[in-house]
Amino acid sequence: MPKKDILVLQDLLLSNAQAAAAIRAELEGRGILAVNIMSSPGAGKTSLLERIAERTAGSLKIAVIEGDIETERDTERIRAKGVPAWQITTGGACHLEAKMVGKVLPSVPPETEILFIENVGNLVCPAGYDLGERLRIVLLSAPEGDDKPKKYPKAFTTAQTLVLTKADLFPHLPFDPAKAKAEALELNPKLDVFITSAVTGEGLDELIAHLRRKREEIQPHA
Amino acid sequence: MPKKDILVLQDLLLSNAQAAAAIRAELEGRGILAVNIMSSPGAGKTSLLERIAERTAGSLKIAVIEGDIETERDTERIRAKGVPAWQITTGGACHLEAKMVGKVLPSVPPETEILFIENVGNLVCPAGYDLGERLRIVLLSAPEGDDKPKKYPKAFTTAQTLVLTKADLFPHLPFDPAKAKAEALELNPKLDVFITSAVTGEGLDELIAHLRRKREEIQPHA
Repeated sequence: MPKKDILVLQDLLLSNAQAAAAIRAELEGRGILAVNIMSSPGAGKTSLLERIAERTAGSLKIAVIEGDIETERDTERIRAKGVPAWQITTGGACHLEAKMVGKVLPSVPPETEILFIENVGNLVCPAGYDLGERLRIVLLSAPEGDDKPKKYPKAFTTAQTLVLTKADLFPHLPFDPAKAKAEALELNPKLDVFITSAVTGEGLDELIAHLRRKREEIQPHA
Repeated sequence: MPKKDILVLQDLLLSNAQAAAAIRAELEGRGILAVNIMSSPGAGKTSLLERIAERTAGSLKIAVIEGDIETERDTERIRAKGVPAWQITTGGACHLEAKMVGKVLPSVPPETEILFIENVGNLVCPAGYDLGERLRIVLLSAPEGDDKPKKYPKAFTTAQTLVLTKADLFPHLPFDPAKAKAEALELNPKLDVFITSAVTGEGLDELIAHLRRKREEIQPHA
């Protein structure tokens, strides 16, 4: 990249990091766990959130920010589950940035326990932008193939949790979950890994228990 | 975006457009059809190229440029089919640019009829960069969902051909190919659409016939 481009990129990332730090401080002060969810298009981010909403209804207060290039489809799906949700339509931009998230924060109900931020479907660009989350989850769906972590490493090295999705399709695919998991752990040995299916429900209770534990680790300010 | 960023982006795109125009002129002068293939990660770009290589061996001279963020895995898969292939590893960048392709052109054998350029797996960013191709193909795999064209419109509005992949998984998915096709055609009524499976071979002969016709439309310079 020419020097001018590098300087502009550094400015953007610095200003994003500052906005993200402010969001993190505000949300943790309010006792809210912010979770940034990233994956390829169609890996099952919205379906996973629908299932989590159904299984935690009445026992966990969640809210969802939906990032998409175009359409409000995902927000409509989440609201249909009775969960507060806000759409950020990027209008072409390939990732969310912290300042976009910051604009939504005043609307997030005070009683919220977990705020999910569903990023734009893109396994590359979102990984470069801190949104002020405390937990970053990367999804890898079985049909994408077990060779993807090393081909798209940044999403896997910057996440704390990996969720392998669409386990119901394992019998129909050459996908080897052990290989995908081993490759991701080679990149990032600290990853917590879950194998799930939004169709059969496999692994969802374990993932929800993990999210509850992460929420409990937050010590809100008095 | 701040004004400075917009100017830098305009510079980048102008310089990319100039490089792309030079590549297009050179390849068409040599009678080579350049095909830019884009999709989400794991939608089946490399598998499609493997099947095309097997079915056209001895009757069509193809070559492949593989764009990836990391690893040379895809190039190794294509070379294993006896097809000349070159890896461009972007080292983090989310799309190929024309100048990266330009560096490979001197290596492309003169007898090549179709040069496939497999872009980085990303349904967003590659759509903004002309690589000097004459034909742009977007793949949408069944597991990604039939709601994706309008959520990621630019790849569909800038392509001339849409290939729906992984048709063998239709029985196991809620995917409706007619809905996906209709939604893509609403965005871009001129799209040629093919339904394929790299597992069963469905639709591959029709797609290869389409590629041969596109190759025949080129009138190489004397």
